[in-house]
Amino acid sequence: MADKVFLVIGAGAGIGGHAAARFAQGGYHAVLARRSDEEGLAKLVAQIEDAGGKASGTLLDASADGTIEELVERTESDIGPIEAVLYNLGAQIGNRDLANTPHRTFELGWRLGCYGLFRLAHALTPRMVERGSGTILVTSATAAVRGNAGQHSHAAAMGGRRMLCQTLKAEFGPQGVHVAHVVVDGSVDAPDTLGKLLGDRFEEYKASKGEDGVIDPAALAETYWHLAHQPKNCWTHEIDVRPFSDVAWWNDNPDPKIRT
Amino acid sequence: MADKVFLVIGAGAGIGGHAAARFAQGGYHAVLARRSDEEGLAKLVAQIEDAGGKASGTLLDASADGTIEELVERTESDIGPIEAVLYNLGAQIGNRDLANTPHRTFELGWRLGCYGLFRLAHALTPRMVERGSGTILVTSATAAVRGNAGQHSHAAAMGGRRMLCQTLKAEFGPQGVHVAHVVVDGSVDAPDTLGKLLGDRFEEYKASKGEDGVIDPAALAETYWHLAHQPKNCWTHEIDVRPFSDVAWWNDNPDPKIRT
Amino acid sequence: MADKVFLVIGAGAGIGGHAAARFAQGGYHAVLARRSDEEGLAKLVAQIEDAGGKASGTLLDASADGTIEELVERTESDIGPIEAVLYNLGAQIGNRDLANTPHRTFELGWRLGCYGLFRLAHALTPRMVERGSGTILVTSATAAVRGNAGQHSHAAAMGGRRMLCQTLKAEFGPQGVHVAHVVVDGSVDAPDTLGKLLGDRFEEYKASKGEDGVIDPAALAETYWHLAHQPKNCWTHEIDVRPFSDVAWWNDNPDPKIRT
Amino acid sequence: MADKVFLVIGAGAGIGGHAAARFAQGGYHAVLARRSDEEGLAKLVAQIEDAGGKASGTLLDASADGTIEELVERTESDIGPIEAVLYNLGAQIGNRDLANTPHRTFELGWRLGCYGLFRLAHALTPRMVERGSGTILVTSATAAVRGNAGQHSHAAAMGGRRMLCQTLKAEFGPQGVHVAHVVVDGSVDAPDTLGKLLGDRFEEYKASKGEDGVIDPAALAETYWHLAHQPKNCWTHEIDVRPFSDVAWWNDNPDPKIRT
Repeated sequence: MADKVFLVIGAGAGIGGHAAARFAQGGYHAVLARRSDEEGLAKLVAQIEDAGGKASGTLLDASADGTIEELVERTESDIGPIEAVLYNLGAQIGNRDLANTPHRTFELGWRLGCYGLFRLAHALTPRMVERGSGTILVTSATAAVRGNAGQHSHAAAMGGRRMLCQTLKAEFGPQGVHVAHVVVDGSVDAPDTLGKLLGDRFEEYKASKGEDGVIDPAALAETYWHLAHQPKNCWTHEIDVRPFSDVAWWNDNPDPKIRT
Repeated sequence: MADKVFLVIGAGAGIGGHAAARFAQGGYHAVLARRSDEEGLAKLVAQIEDAGGKASGTLLDASADGTIEELVERTESDIGPIEAVLYNLGAQIGNRDLANTPHRTFELGWRLGCYGLFRLAHALTPRMVERGSGTILVTSATAAVRGNAGQHSHAAAMGGRRMLCQTLKAEFGPQGVHVAHVVVDGSVDAPDTLGKLLGDRFEEYKASKGEDGVIDPAALAETYWHLAHQPKNCWTHEIDVRPFSDVAWWNDNPDPKIRT
Repeated sequence: MADKVFLVIGAGAGIGGHAAARFAQGGYHAVLARRSDEEGLAKLVAQIEDAGGKASGTLLDASADGTIEELVERTESDIGPIEAVLYNLGAQIGNRDLANTPHRTFELGWRLGCYGLFRLAHALTPRMVERGSGTILVTSATAAVRGNAGQHSHAAAMGGRRMLCQTLKAEFGPQGVHVAHVVVDGSVDAPDTLGKLLGDRFEEYKASKGEDGVIDPAALAETYWHLAHQPKNCWTHEIDVRPFSDVAWWNDNPDPKIRT
Repeated sequence: MADKVFLVIGAGAGIGGHAAARFAQGGYHAVLARRSDEEGLAKLVAQIEDAGGKASGTLLDASADGTIEELVERTESDIGPIEAVLYNLGAQIGNRDLANTPHRTFELGWRLGCYGLFRLAHALTPRMVERGSGTILVTSATAAVRGNAGQHSHAAAMGGRRMLCQTLKAEFGPQGVHVAHVVVDGSVDAPDTLGKLLGDRFEEYKASKGEDGVIDPAALAETYWHLAHQPKNCWTHEIDVRPFSDVAWWNDNPDPKIRT
């Protein structure tokens, strides 16, 4: 009999990897897709298997036409129905003024941040609708709700993504598909993204935030698990998370310094 | 040794009662406060105790000065530290045009919907700050984020309440107090509120919404439990819930017709 | 024949006074109401008259029951129909933590920031509805849309006020009454409010903001005039204003320092 | 001496044409760009000239790379500095479910709704920054702030556009460039867009809305003029407009029935 699948698009060692581990622990076969680093991917799969879970890994260039579509089809035929998916691709490239945001960068931001989710929904929702159930979790950022200086590419992509989540929810919610948009308003202890962005300063940065000052992706994974298992009569569409000590995005921020 | 307490202000047979039951099941001593119906209150307490939990009930006129304050003090001295509280008082009075919204009604809406939470925070946050932990859950409504026709009293109270939740979070979050504002965007299977409002039509109304078409307060209680137990590095401040089949508040409702 | 009246509730030398002058210049009889400073009030009235306009001044304790109501009645019987009104009362008391926000302060914030507008609408909308026209302008603040630390009283009052503006618009818009909520997201060159709050530092502060770095209330008055004269087919309900050089409230703020 | 230019991208007989006429009346040389209908374009130009204004027309495929860029350059060298521009391209294609929203449609929506504004800003902001002044007006829709069913393409494009407006404002506001995002929440009396969408039913539809029930683009043009001429110390970034009789997008529409 086929396994129920939890698919992660954008499965680094941070949010994606921890979500995969959490859902595998809960009985899903986790399928981890990421653009590069086959070794890192294999390690995440091995960790899940060592913990007694089921997992598969695949490299994926999500920005290329047909790739997400093929992955959905292959996963459903080879492993089992995708009961839940986490769209975890970011489009953050740091702060760049407009002159230093080339047209290709802006378009790539949209391809990863917005269009990829549209393509995923196109490929996956007919299957979920036929089954009458499914969950689409979307990791998002404050760039989806406000546009900071230097964030032209990221904010335009994320703003489109949030509206797309709402139109998907409006169409597919009543057909049994749960779409949840999660604004992650704080730094995440994610070695493959923030870690690479900060490099040597990563540990120092985390230390400067103090205990519990950076989001533990394992904690966020529990919230993803909760969202994916809310009964149909009580679904969340929008939620935010941040460390207790962080100033929320809508408040005056004492001193932003680094903020990724 | 003292029990850790989960206090519910506004503990009817719907959201409040189910939240109390859920937290009691998780090891809290549930303290249920409501304005009237001593019999109904005793029944809720008995149900929790029958299930092996600890609970106490008290009648409370939350709109009267000193009452919430006294309850906080009495609970902490007689039972134990209030680790989590659910402010569950509504101020919904149905749709009334302005001419039929007397000044006293508008003020009472504010006293229950906004001022009571301020008073609760005044009484409770010093204790939570001293302990370095605590959770304040607030049941809210779409009236906190948009003002519909006929909702003068309710929306003004809830809009103030939401902003108060943000200022409380801004001040007390960094001191270890988790404030969460929950927009309940849908009907709840709550006999003491919606049930009384609809009377004979309540069952018919629920049936018209279909299976899972009305929020089960037990399901919502699970989300409250989840929120109250997120690790400090990953706290949610704002979240919404609704049945899968409901149109979200921000969408065109029932019959959009043409709208270009 | 009776004059058409522009009533200002909260008519200091800043926003209220300049709005009164602008509407008087446009042919309205400006009625200026403020809590205190009879001399300052007389000066504003004299300036309008010296410029060829019509104006009257009155002292008003807006927080006391019956006062706004009496002013509306007296104005309509003695001077003429109130075609437009500016509700310009603030409730800003500077940043205070919860422990230093007494219950009376919080209630007074609500009385001035929210309840007063409700009372004004109660007294005035029946007249405007009968005439099939009227404009209610409301000066607001970012505290209506987000709650900063230390703003418990102000934000709760303004959040309620914004929702009330929406419910008023929902009920009275179709009856010909234009309600507009104006988020003033920046410092205003207002000697009677910001000036008194900053005292000796006021000029230094304005200088630090540079040319056009502080809102000129005469400029804002032009926007109020525009809003009040939009044709019925194209009404604005929500609008924001700020100096060109200010960071918008939703963005990371480099260095807040003073921010009143 | 060169004329100061008001450029309209998306200049049909509705909003774009009326804005061009208003700015021409105020002394600007209006440059009208639209995709097709050379005859209709010539008529708009002639109307402006007949009224004593200056105007030029050009056909433009805004979705093609280089076109907006070339127009900006040509306009500035042949006519004069673009002091104000109205980005008036829509991406509304009516309601279509996801299965009937092809990938090409979704991408085209983004190209017109979001990417074109990015390209315009890239071409124009360096010139405006050098001059220390300029205004970018953006016609928008409720799809920028909420995603209705069937609006996948439109909402994703508009949501990105709104965030882009915020990032542009954040970077270029302090350099003297005024960016204003205008949510048009109602039907516009626009023969080239809504008129074509409704065809024979257009007049009937307008009649059904009653007097002043549809936005007169000439009225909206006055608001655009006002926005473009606010002093630097008092700039609006976000504003909405709708007919007095329309339910705002955030309210329960036509038939709320019971909703408690």
